[in-house]
Amino acid sequence: MVEILECRTLVKLLVLCHLIFSVAVSKVEGRIRHYRWEVKYEYKSPDCFKKLVITINGGTPGPKILAQQGDTVVVELKNSLLTENVAIHWHGIRQIGTPWSDGTEGVTQCPILPGDIFIYKFVVDRAGSYLYHAHYGIQREAGLYGSIIVSVPNGVSEPFVYDYDRSIILNDWYHKSTFEQATGLSSIPFVWVGEPQSLLINGRGRFNCSLLATPSLEAGVCNATNPDCSSYILTVISGKTYRLRISSLTSLSALNFQIEGHNMTVVEADGHYVEPFEIQNLYIYSGETYSILVKANQNPSRNYWMTTNVVSRKPATLTGLAILNYYPNYPKKSPPTLPTAGPLWNETAQRLAQSLSLKAHKNFTHTPPLTSDKVIVLLNTQNKIDGVHRWSVNNVSFSLPHTPYLVALKENVNLNRVFDQNPPPENYDFENYDIYNVDAQNQRRLWYNRKCQVL
Amino acid sequence: MVEILECRTLVKLLVLCHLIFSVAVSKVEGRIRHYRWEVKYEYKSPDCFKKLVITINGGTPGPKILAQQGDTVVVELKNSLLTENVAIHWHGIRQIGTPWSDGTEGVTQCPILPGDIFIYKFVVDRAGSYLYHAHYGIQREAGLYGSIIVSVPNGVSEPFVYDYDRSIILNDWYHKSTFEQATGLSSIPFVWVGEPQSLLINGRGRFNCSLLATPSLEAGVCNATNPDCSSYILTVISGKTYRLRISSLTSLSALNFQIEGHNMTVVEADGHYVEPFEIQNLYIYSGETYSILVKANQNPSRNYWMTTNVVSRKPATLTGLAILNYYPNYPKKSPPTLPTAGPLWNETAQRLAQSLSLKAHKNFTHTPPLTSDKVIVLLNTQNKIDGVHRWSVNNVSFSLPHTPYLVALKENVNLNRVFDQNPPPENYDFENYDIYNVDAQNQRRLWYNRKCQVL
Repeated sequence: MVEILECRTLVKLLVLCHLIFSVAVSKVEGRIRHYRWEVKYEYKSPDCFKKLVITINGGTPGPKILAQQGDTVVVELKNSLLTENVAIHWHGIRQIGTPWSDGTEGVTQCPILPGDIFIYKFVVDRAGSYLYHAHYGIQREAGLYGSIIVSVPNGVSEPFVYDYDRSIILNDWYHKSTFEQATGLSSIPFVWVGEPQSLLINGRGRFNCSLLATPSLEAGVCNATNPDCSSYILTVISGKTYRLRISSLTSLSALNFQIEGHNMTVVEADGHYVEPFEIQNLYIYSGETYSILVKANQNPSRNYWMTTNVVSRKPATLTGLAILNYYPNYPKKSPPTLPTAGPLWNETAQRLAQSLSLKAHKNFTHTPPLTSDKVIVLLNTQNKIDGVHRWSVNNVSFSLPHTPYLVALKENVNLNRVFDQNPPPENYDFENYDIYNVDAQNQRRLWYNRKCQVL
Repeated sequence: MVEILECRTLVKLLVLCHLIFSVAVSKVEGRIRHYRWEVKYEYKSPDCFKKLVITINGGTPGPKILAQQGDTVVVELKNSLLTENVAIHWHGIRQIGTPWSDGTEGVTQCPILPGDIFIYKFVVDRAGSYLYHAHYGIQREAGLYGSIIVSVPNGVSEPFVYDYDRSIILNDWYHKSTFEQATGLSSIPFVWVGEPQSLLINGRGRFNCSLLATPSLEAGVCNATNPDCSSYILTVISGKTYRLRISSLTSLSALNFQIEGHNMTVVEADGHYVEPFEIQNLYIYSGETYSILVKANQNPSRNYWMTTNVVSRKPATLTGLAILNYYPNYPKKSPPTLPTAGPLWNETAQRLAQSLSLKAHKNFTHTPPLTSDKVIVLLNTQNKIDGVHRWSVNNVSFSLPHTPYLVALKENVNLNRVFDQNPPPENYDFENYDIYNVDAQNQRRLWYNRKCQVL
C-alpha cells in the first residue's frame, strides 16, 4: 500500500516536473508559428486589369507572418504551379543556424519543384518589420510577396508608443507576364517592360480601364468595379496613434508615400530603431521597410488620401491611392480633395534630408570597431557582357552557380567546380576611372551541371 | 631488317583489320546522330500574332531529326527557360533498352531543371515517321515539338516508290499562354480556352489581324507581312511522286487535310506500312502520323492550295493554308482558286471509310495470337472528381506520381509509397452502364514527396 502511494506521488511529481520544464522551455525557445502555404496561379485584378498572378493560399500579397521575437516560424510550402519551380526568401531574417532556410535559390537551396513540399524553418531573433518574396527568376513580380512582423518579447518596451499597429506594402505592377518581362531583359537588344501600369498599396491599385480597346473591356479584362481593386482602407480613431509599417517591393521604381494632412514620425528602418524624425513624405526604395507613427489628429469628419508616386524618373503611372478613414465616416467615401501628387519626381533635397536624418536610436547603437582590418572599395556599374547589360561590382558580374553553394558544401562537391576560387577584386582604380567608359569586363559563370536534379 | 619489315607488315595488317572491323561494327550498330538543343522562350509570330513561344535552337517546330533505322539518336538538351522545367517525349520510338530516355516526366524521369543539361540517347529501331514533343505540363502547346524521320537501312526497299520525301506537321494555335490555358483547365468551374486562333502547317498559319483592336495593331502585336507567318510552300516538279509525312500535334482539334486537285495514296500509318488506298481528304487526329504519296500530275502552270480544317466540332477557325508550288512558278503566287474548305465538319462516312481502309500491308503483318490469356474491357469517360473533370478509364483517373515509376524502381524506393498496388479494374458493367450517368469515381493520387529534388 505504501509503495503504491509513493509511486502515485512520484508520478504526480514527474508530471508536475514535466509541466514546469515545458513552460520554462517554451519561454526560452519561443513558440512555433506554423503556416501551410499553397503556391499557384490564379486570375486576379489587383488594379482592375485581370491577369494571372501567383498567389499564396489564394491571395497576393500572401498571408502576413506574425511572430514574437524568439519564435520559430515554420512555413510548409507546397508548390502547385504546373511547370515552374519556386523559392521564397525571408528578407531581413538573419537565419542564424538555419542558412538552408534563406530561400535564395542557387545560393542556399535547389528550387522547389512542382508538387514538392519544402519546409522553411527559422527563428525570428530580432523584433521589427520584414518582408518575404519569391527569389527565383522574377516570380516576385507575379505577386509572390508579403510581410513579416516580429513583435518584442513580453515585458520589453520599444522606444516609442502607439495604440495600433498596421502594415502597408507598396509595389509597382505590370500587365505583361513575368515571362514577357524576362524574355525582354535577356534579349539583344535589351527590351525593358517600361513604366508600371499601376502602383499597388497592399495589393490594390487602379488602372484606367478606358485606356483599353473596347473588345478587351467587353471581354471583362478590365473592370473598375472589381472588388479586387477597391482601394485599401485604413480606418483610424480620432486621437489615436498608429504605427504603420511601410515597405516596398517594387521591381524598378523608387517611390514616395504620404498621408494627406498628416505628419509621419520615422521610428524604425529595416528592423532597427532610429532616432525619431518627422517628415511629410516618405521616400522608399525596393526592399526597404520603415515604421512611422501617425497621429489621427485632423478633422475627423472626413477621410484623407494616402498616396504613392514614382520618383527618380519621370512618372508615367497614375498615383497609387488608399484611404485613411476616420471612424465612423463611411470607409469608401472619397476625400473631398484631389489626391496629393507628392514632391516633384526629381526633387532631391528632401530625399537627402531623409537619408541624413536616419540615425540609429541612441539606446540601440552598435558602436563600430575603431580600426579596420581591410578596406574594400566597391564600384557598382552596368556592364555590357556578351551583348547583355549586367550589374557588376568592380567590373565583375555575378552568375548563379548551378549547384547552390550551400548544397555544394553539404555534399562535399569539389568547390573548384562550383565557383571561382579567385578572390573578387576588392578595389578599382577610383582615381582614374571614367564612369562613362567602363572597363573591359569579365563575367564569372561556372556551372556544375545537374547537381540539383540527380537523385 | 627482316624483323622490321615484318613488324611494318603486321602494323599495316592491324590497321586494315581495324578498319574492316570498324566498318562492320558501324553497319551493325548504326551511326550516332548527335543533336545539341537549347530550349528557351522567344517572341515569334507563327500566325502573324506575336507571342512568347518555346523554341528549340531558335525555332518552332524544332529541328527535324533525320536518322536511319538502327542509328542512335543523342539529344543533348539544355533547358534555358528561367523558372520552368522541361521534358521531351519521342512519340512512336519504342525505347527498347532505354526507358529512361522516353521523356515522360513523372513516369520515366524527373523534369529537367532550368540550367540543366539532360542527354536523351536511344536507338531508332524501326523505319517510319514519328514525332517528338514536350511532355511536361502543356508546354507542347507553346511550340515545343517536331518530327523524327527514320529511313530504311541501305539496300532495303519499301513497299512503294517515290521521288522525294517531305514532312508536314499540323497544329492548332492559341494566343493565350499555356499558363492561362492551364489555369482555366484546373479552375472550378472548368474554363476551356475555346477554339484555336489558327491552324499551323509546318509552324505557319494566318490570323486575321483586323480582328484586333487598333492599339494592338499599332503596337505591332499582329503583322500580316511578318515572314514568320508566310505560308509554307512545298515546291514540286511536274511528273514526280512525293512522299508526304503528315502528322498532327493539335491540342484538342481533329483535322482534315487536302491538296487541291490531287489524290493522296496512304502508304504508312504511325510507323507501319499499310495496304495503299486512295483518298481526297486525310482525317488526322493528334499524335498520328501518315505517309501519303502524291503525284504532281496536275496542270503545272499554276500553284495549288494545301488546306486543313477543324472537324468533329463546328469550326470557328480560318482554314489553315499552304501552297503546293509547281516549279518553276513563283512560289508565293496564290492559286487562282479559293482554298478548298474540305468536307463538312460533321461528315462521318468518309472518316469511317478511312478507318476501315487502314490495314497492315500484306508483307508486313504481325499475326495476332489465336487465343487471349485475359480480356480487358475499357470504358473511357470524363468523370468529375473533386469538382474537376478528369479523363478516366473504368472510372479510375490517373495521377502522375511525384516520384517517377522508373526512378522509384532504380532507387529501390518502397513502391507502396509511390503508387497504388491494387490492380486497376479490368472491366466494368458494360451491360447496364449508363454513359449519361457515370459511376461514382475514385481517383488514385499518391505522392511520394520531394524525391526528384533531394540530392
